[in-house]
Order: sequence, then structure tokens, then C-alpha cells
Amino acid sequence: MSGSLKIGIAGLGTVGKGVIDLLSDNKGLISNRVGKCIDIYGVSATDRSKNRGIELHNFEWFDNAIDLASSPQIDVFVELVGGNEGIAKESVEAALKSGKNVVTANKALIAEHGLALSKIAIENSSSIFYEASVAGGIPIIKTLKESLAGNKISKIYGILNGTSNFILTKMEQTGKSFDVVLKEAQNLGYAESDPSFDVNGKDTAHKLAILTSLMIDVPPNLSSIEVEGIDKISSVDISYAKKLGFCIKLLGMVLKTEKGYVQRVNPCMIPTDSSISRVNDAKNAVFVEGNFIGSLILEGLGAGAGPTASAVVSDIIDIARDNLTPMSWCNNSNNVELIVDRERIGPWYLRLEVIDQPGVLAEISAELKNQSVSIESVLQRGRAPGECVSLIITTHETNENKFKKAMENIKCLDSLTEPPCIIRIENL
Amino acid sequence: MSGSLKIGIAGLGTVGKGVIDLLSDNKGLISNRVGKCIDIYGVSATDRSKNRGIELHNFEWFDNAIDLASSPQIDVFVELVGGNEGIAKESVEAALKSGKNVVTANKALIAEHGLALSKIAIENSSSIFYEASVAGGIPIIKTLKESLAGNKISKIYGILNGTSNFILTKMEQTGKSFDVVLKEAQNLGYAESDPSFDVNGKDTAHKLAILTSLMIDVPPNLSSIEVEGIDKISSVDISYAKKLGFCIKLLGMVLKTEKGYVQRVNPCMIPTDSSISRVNDAKNAVFVEGNFIGSLILEGLGAGAGPTASAVVSDIIDIARDNLTPMSWCNNSNNVELIVDRERIGPWYLRLEVIDQPGVLAEISAELKNQSVSIESVLQRGRAPGECVSLIITTHETNENKFKKAMENIKCLDSLTEPPCIIRIENL
Repeated sequence: MSGSLKIGIAGLGTVGKGVIDLLSDNKGLISNRVGKCIDIYGVSATDRSKNRGIELHNFEWFDNAIDLASSPQIDVFVELVGGNEGIAKESVEAALKSGKNVVTANKALIAEHGLALSKIAIENSSSIFYEASVAGGIPIIKTLKESLAGNKISKIYGILNGTSNFILTKMEQTGKSFDVVLKEAQNLGYAESDPSFDVNGKDTAHKLAILTSLMIDVPPNLSSIEVEGIDKISSVDISYAKKLGFCIKLLGMVLKTEKGYVQRVNPCMIPTDSSISRVNDAKNAVFVEGNFIGSLILEGLGAGAGPTASAVVSDIIDIARDNLTPMSWCNNSNNVELIVDRERIGPWYLRLEVIDQPGVLAEISAELKNQSVSIESVLQRGRAPGECVSLIITTHETNENKFKKAMENIKCLDSLTEPPCIIRIENL
Repeated sequence: MSGSLKIGIAGLGTVGKGVIDLLSDNKGLISNRVGKCIDIYGVSATDRSKNRGIELHNFEWFDNAIDLASSPQIDVFVELVGGNEGIAKESVEAALKSGKNVVTANKALIAEHGLALSKIAIENSSSIFYEASVAGGIPIIKTLKESLAGNKISKIYGILNGTSNFILTKMEQTGKSFDVVLKEAQNLGYAESDPSFDVNGKDTAHKLAILTSLMIDVPPNLSSIEVEGIDKISSVDISYAKKLGFCIKLLGMVLKTEKGYVQRVNPCMIPTDSSISRVNDAKNAVFVEGNFIGSLILEGLGAGAGPTASAVVSDIIDIARDNLTPMSWCNNSNNVELIVDRERIGPWYLRLEVIDQPGVLAEISAELKNQSVSIESVLQRGRAPGECVSLIITTHETNENKFKKAMENIKCLDSLTEPPCIIRIENL
């Protein structure tokens, strides 16, 4: 046993407590495997007096995370505060500037400031690790940085937000509305009291930006991501999806196209017999396609104290073992272009609420035809002459721009009683 | 770019060619990511004149792999010869003794001689890497050694042999017999001309022994593995399995029991709605349960030039980056016991070919009752008084020893026309 690695932990929420528990419960096993002890020297959080079920007297207390980050007593600073600015960012900067290696679970911080932080790290011969920032316990960061380092990767897609997936799964299973299921998810602790980042797709976008950066060796770039959440998904669409042989999942996806690399976050209809459709509840999964490995799927728990702590500790262990693979974009002069592509070629699902009267379908199909959008199927459940009915259309592969132009025109038709609902179909 | 890493490759079969292709096709990408070039200095194989589609004049040729392994011109020796003795073992030993890091795809070598080789490595400050030895492109070795190093792992199970899985999938899809499907698999290149190691479970046992060694930090131990192959599985059983809501998969499994750690390789009946049941054709998948990460699934291509080369090159890249995590049992004085457990508690599937006459079921159920084996369901398709019919029984959870005693007695009943067929049910 050659010495010990001293760590400081800022942030004592669910994940912070999970890391402390893991390092205590599995102490002997870890020191055997690593050849040294990993000891927590100090901790920092907003309120010392709060009861967290942690024996605080075992650790030095720091009121200010920046003081902990700069303390010469620690080798590694673990940032579990969260948020892309403020104390999280400042303490990480302070730790890197004092030459310490940093471990963080903070996807917003890496997605927004990854490049700037990696520059500080290089200047100070330190490193920043963030396995826990994407997909919780699933080791997708290490897999991309190391296991797939020999592959040109053409596509990554995944279910990266457990809250959204939990809500979509429950909506499908119970037929309840988004709002009702969201409340239930909040009561069960599966959704935050402010769930907007989870359900509006922003959290998935942060994670996708990080995956993209590792895939093509460029800094994370949020501005080029088209982001759409699940807040507009209704139980009606989930039920029609089922009838058509699809389920709805919120996917983050990056893929190589002829024009460049495209990143997007959308709720998508996916065939129920595809591998990704059975990733339910709060689970996450990531699918990767590389030019030698073929396809690889990683599936597991994307959040929660245990899985996230497992990922944080895997980074600490890498540091203890001197496995310090740098961020792949650091030593790289990559000219890869991240583009926003509004011309995706692919099929669509389309739900129109229309007055049930002769000629409506003729009008709509004429607008689609005018933009060369070819209809694959039409479904009208029930008849109610003169009243409102749902008209469900699926299209063949079509250019996104043209499809959306057709939608602009359809939106103006008198027979429509509310704006159309459109969802991408991805035959994954 | 700081210098280059010189490698020597012994064995120019499918995987050897795959590694040469990968290092050539993705050369720029790899040197960007690693910060140095990976160059092939020399190669060795049995017959220089054989046309392999490789430009041999780019490399030094060695008639003897041991000369290549000891050459001062190389930094890393890549062993892709195969086999647990002979030139594979001797050349790996020679490379380690001359202080070189070794990369191998050879599961038999690691499973049989892992401990001895790791001792030579430690004595000579070298290392041995074997990501490609288990599950092809799936990075399960790194995941266990590094990403899950902070977890106590209680269970690993998986589909680890693509040939067997391909055969079972085709038998299920076509209703054809084992022998017919095996021939088709051989014609398609999915099975070797001598497929015995694949179908008798030995190959899976080698891989399982390696996974177990990483799970509990002990050297691989083949002798404690109960091994059963798929060569006795008939299309009749696959068809009954389907009717009962199961499919049949060849599983390697290691789990913690009250008595110790148990490793086994068996064809198992698995519910068709479980995650592992949809791992079809030549695909592999590994399921891991850890005390913090919860459950993790990795799925991908378990064999073939591309995926295996991807794994071999990931090891070479780790060496180039100085990420030299040692085998976990090396610095370890672990007293964990690997046991053979004949008292598994679990349900069984049982097919009896019997004469259709009154009292047969009474006789059989009496024998089961005598050993406290409780019947869950009985199925007799068709009636043919006085002739032979299949009687399908599933049991509730039962002690394996007692079940097998009951089977010994049932085997002796006059009404049986052939030995019983029994298959474990695993409700995974």
C-alpha cells in the first residue's frame, strides 16, 4: 500500500452522500484494487447543521468550497454542487489552478465551459474527470475516451434523461396525462420540484454535447443542438403511437451526415420491437456505432445516489492509478463542423384535430403533395360529422424543410381546430 | 506528437488482419487522440507466402513469433495466435520476460495460465492486457477493472459465445435441428469446422473464468466451473420453451451465494420478456450487478475481425497512454472461495418421453414429491394411447440435488422411452 489519496468533496446532496457511503462501505475492496487508500479529508456544503445522515466530524468542514478546492491538504477536488456558474465553476477553477485533479458530476458545467476548463487544466498540469455527468452509472465517458478510441464513430443516440423516460413510460402504461404523471413522479422523487431542465430537453442536450465532444474531438457545443422536450407530448399521441407499433422516447442523437455532424434532442417514435424501446422507467441507454466495433449498447441506471457515486468514484480511482487520459479535444486541431440540419430525411407522425366534413383529407393531402411529402398511412378513429376528430397521418421519408412548409400551410386550413402535433419517426 | 509506439503482431488470421486494417484506416484519428503514432514494426505467422490481403513488405517478417516477442525493436507484443499452449504461450512469456507489455485476444491462455503469466509480468515490470479475450468488442474487461472498481459485484451473467447464440437463435426461428443449423452456421462462417469448444460450453467457461477473476480479484479458476453445452438441446425443447414463454440461451454465470462464489455454464430457459432474451444471432451481452451501480448491461458484437480488432487496439492505446491498470488479483491476498454448488435453488424444465398409459403421471409426480419437488405445470400435447408422447413439466423452486435424485429415480421407470431432458429455468 503506497500512501493515500486525499480528496475534498463540495456538495453534500444525494450524490455527495452516495460518494461518502461508497468510499466507506467498499473501503477495503478499493484499497486492495488500487494499492492505496482513498481518504476524504474535507467537505463543504451550504449548511453545516443540516442532518444528512453523514458523520461530519470525520472530515474537516469548509464553509467555502473554494477554500477546500485550494487546500494543500487535498489531492483531488470532487465537485458535486451543480449548476454551470457560481460556486461550482469557481471552485473547479480554483482546484485546477492549484494543480489538483478535479472530478465532477456536473454536465451543465462541462457542456457550457468544457473548453475553458480544459485550458486551465492544461496550463496547470491538472485534469478534469466527469464520468458521472452523462448517464449516471453507465461508463459511457470512459468507453468513448478509451475503449472506442480506435474507432471512427458515426452515430451515438440514447435515452439520457431518467425523469423524462420515467414520465413517458408511466404515460404509456397508465394512459394518464403528462401533468398528472409529472406530479406523481415528483411525489416519488423521480422529478425535481422544478422539472423544466429535465422535461424541456435541456439536460439531455448538455449530455449530448459532452458525448459529441468525445465522439469527434471538439469542445462541447450547445448552440448547434436542436432541442425539443416532452412537455408537448400528450397521452393521445402515446396511445396512437402504440396502435401504429411505436413508443415515444426522448432521444439525444448525434450523427454524421453528408454535410457535417448533426446533434438533436427530440421526442421520437421508435418501433416497439427495437432495442431502445424496452429501456423503460428511469433507465438510461446509449447506442454507439463505430467503424470497427460495429454497434455497442450500454444500459443502466442514469441517476440516483448509488449509480452516480459509482461513476464519481471510478474517476477518483483512475486518478489514484494515474490513468489520466486527457479530454480528447485538448491536444487536437480538429476541423470537424457541427451543423444544424433542417433537412433531415425521415418519416413523420402527424396528428391533426379537424372538423369531420367531406374534403378535409383532400385538402390536407394536397398540401402534403405540394411539398412532395408522401403519405404512408392515414387513420381516423370514429366518425362525428361536423364535429372534431383526430386524423393521424404517417409519412414516408421526407425532407424536413419541405415537411415543415407543408405544416405551415396545413396550419392555416379552416378545418383545423388546433395546431398540428408532429413527431419524428426514427426506425432505429 | 511525442514519438511512436512500435508493436509486433503474431498471428495473421482474421483478427490479425483486422488489427492491421484498423491501425491503418484510423491512423490519423488514433495518433491525434493518443498523442503518438502506433506503428507496426514486425509480424509473424506460420506461412509467409499465404495471400491474406496484407501488404507484408511494410513490416519486418519473423518466422518465429518468439524472436518477434523478444525483439528490442518493439514496445508491445500482440499475440493473436490462439491456443493455451505452444507458440502462443511461449511467445507471450518471452515478451513479458523481456519487459514488454503484451496484448492478447487469447481467452484460453488467460483462463488457464493467467496467474503464472501475471507473476512473470510483475517480475519483469511488464503488463498483460486482454480486452479482446471476452465478448469481442464489448469493453467488459475495462468496465470491470476500472469503471466498476468501486463496486462489490454480486453477479455477472452473459451470452459469451456468438456461435452458440447464433445456433440457438436459428433453431428457434426455423424449427430446424441442432445438426442442420450447425452445418448452416459453418457454411456461413459463424462456426468453426471443429465447433466443439463453442457448442460444448468450454469457450464460455474460459471467458467466465476471466470475468470472475476480475469480479472478485482471484486468479481465473476453470476447475470450479460446472460446464454444459448446447449440443443436447433439441428443437422440440426450443418449441416447448416458446409455448411456456421462454427462450433458451447458453449462459455463463457467476454469483455470490451464502456458501461462496459459484460459476456455471448452462443452457437456460429465460422468460421471453427479459432483456437478455432479445440478444440474438451472434451478439454477446454481459449483465453485471454491483452494490452501488445497480445493474449494468453491455451488448454488442462478440466476435469478428472488426469488433475484436477494436478491443485489441483499445489495449494498445491504453499502453500508449500509460494507463497500465494491473490485473486485479496481482496485488491481492484474497481469500474468496470459488465453490461448486450442487444445491442451487431454482425451477426446472423437464421433458419426458413416455408411453401414453394411465398412471404414468402419478408415478412421476410421486417420485418428484418424494424429493420435495413441487410441480408448477404439466403439459401433454396430443393423445396416443399405448404410444410414445412428450410430457412437459416445469417445477417450482427446488434444491438441485433433490431434483437430480428424483430424476435418477424417474429415469428407471418402465414408462420412459428415453432419458429425461432437463433444463434450468432462470427468471432473469
